[in-house]
Amino acid sequence: MNDTAAQDQQPKKILLVSAHPEPRSLNAGLTAFAADHLRAAGHEVRVSDLYAMKWKAVLDADDFPDHPGDRRLDVMNASERATLAGRLAPDIAAEQEKVLWSDAVILQFPMWWFSTPAILKGWIERVFTSGFGYGPALPPPYSENPLGGRRALVSVTAGARASSFSDRGIHGQLADVLHPLQHGLFWFTGMAPLEPFVMYGANEVSEEEFAAAKLAYGQRLDGLFTDEPVPYRTLVGGDYGRDMRLLPGVEAPGTSGLGLHVRPRG
Amino acid sequence: MNDTAAQDQQPKKILLVSAHPEPRSLNAGLTAFAADHLRAAGHEVRVSDLYAMKWKAVLDADDFPDHPGDRRLDVMNASERATLAGRLAPDIAAEQEKVLWSDAVILQFPMWWFSTPAILKGWIERVFTSGFGYGPALPPPYSENPLGGRRALVSVTAGARASSFSDRGIHGQLADVLHPLQHGLFWFTGMAPLEPFVMYGANEVSEEEFAAAKLAYGQRLDGLFTDEPVPYRTLVGGDYGRDMRLLPGVEAPGTSGLGLHVRPRG
Repeated sequence: MNDTAAQDQQPKKILLVSAHPEPRSLNAGLTAFAADHLRAAGHEVRVSDLYAMKWKAVLDADDFPDHPGDRRLDVMNASERATLAGRLAPDIAAEQEKVLWSDAVILQFPMWWFSTPAILKGWIERVFTSGFGYGPALPPPYSENPLGGRRALVSVTAGARASSFSDRGIHGQLADVLHPLQHGLFWFTGMAPLEPFVMYGANEVSEEEFAAAKLAYGQRLDGLFTDEPVPYRTLVGGDYGRDMRLLPGVEAPGTSGLGLHVRPRG
Repeated sequence: MNDTAAQDQQPKKILLVSAHPEPRSLNAGLTAFAADHLRAAGHEVRVSDLYAMKWKAVLDADDFPDHPGDRRLDVMNASERATLAGRLAPDIAAEQEKVLWSDAVILQFPMWWFSTPAILKGWIERVFTSGFGYGPALPPPYSENPLGGRRALVSVTAGARASSFSDRGIHGQLADVLHPLQHGLFWFTGMAPLEPFVMYGANEVSEEEFAAAKLAYGQRLDGLFTDEPVPYRTLVGGDYGRDMRLLPGVEAPGTSGLGLHVRPRG
């Protein structure tokens, strides 16, 4: 615990991003619960309900209004140019403002094909432009700084049971399945990802199970600014060489796979 | 090698799914190259160019025309009901027909935030409906059969260099980063995924590098029906218990992470 109990009590700003087509879904219920719970604790909350907003999922040249229609679209360059010039499509700029406003970002979604729904993937790839979440103008490479300090929490529902995503589970460990999000997005942009909150067996949920899930989720929300983030290794920490490979021998014996990139826990 | 050289020579049917907004992009170039190369070898090729098709990325109630507007949308149930009744939106039905027609599916895309562009994620989640790619009506659970026998190849471009995705690379091994696609989508639906074809350092590619990449990709395309697929473990093979966890002791000593789900080679 790096933070003090006093800090925990200070009002914070939280952006909730929710991605489900059905307003009466479990995911919508968890989003509403989180917003209420965090507000009751004195925090400020903003919600981006992507389906309700009719969020444009597909990144294309329209995202960069100054991009000449006849010029070849190089996504990273066009993205960075528009970002640095403050000339991104208004819907993207509005979401970037929310991320910058926030002390924590929560993504709420059903796991579809072992990742985020397309509408949320489109939120990620359109909002986290080069020059905002990462990029050549943000030294050093793989900086911990672009969105540094912000907390990040995945809250996901999954149809499968917990054992399927356990250490030896047939779908892979949940941490490994969510690596593109936890490490690829959050760690990469300098955010501090917490352990995901997961509701398994989500295809059929009784009232009692939903009540129990809210209780468990409430506890996780209470720890949003005090729980220990996943201790990913860092460039700054000196764990990687100039070739971006983990230095020999820094891991505990027998560690392999994506677990290599997490520091052993105390 | 299960297949014979003779089989290799037989004309096959290949579906190429391509996802890049720029028709002059590296990805578009690789798609065009693959189509030409495979046709020159006598195969039939169909291309789903998702941006050119203006593919609807976002799964919603419109995908299931018979779904009553006032009824709560339970995605898996609505999806399965529409699939079994042959009442899916026409754009989905057309893509399912292409997948069923094919002997192999190739996905061509730029790695954006360590996964597929949203438009391709939306192709996956809208096309691989319950009842088509998986589902309660397709026994046994996690069957090898729904789309069984079809080959699957990811062809991806990545801005980072190869060492970043190597065994100890900072982003994680490529096989682990692509697990949601290779194991989550392809293996889960009974397809046989090959090792991905990757073009690293894709943000700046010289003519010479593109020529070299086409040569390497051409060799992979020549082995599309003869190369050994990734030897994922199977339920049928008896590697997992009824709790969907890998049975104790079946792996080589020291194996951990997602590598648990691949049988030792050779």
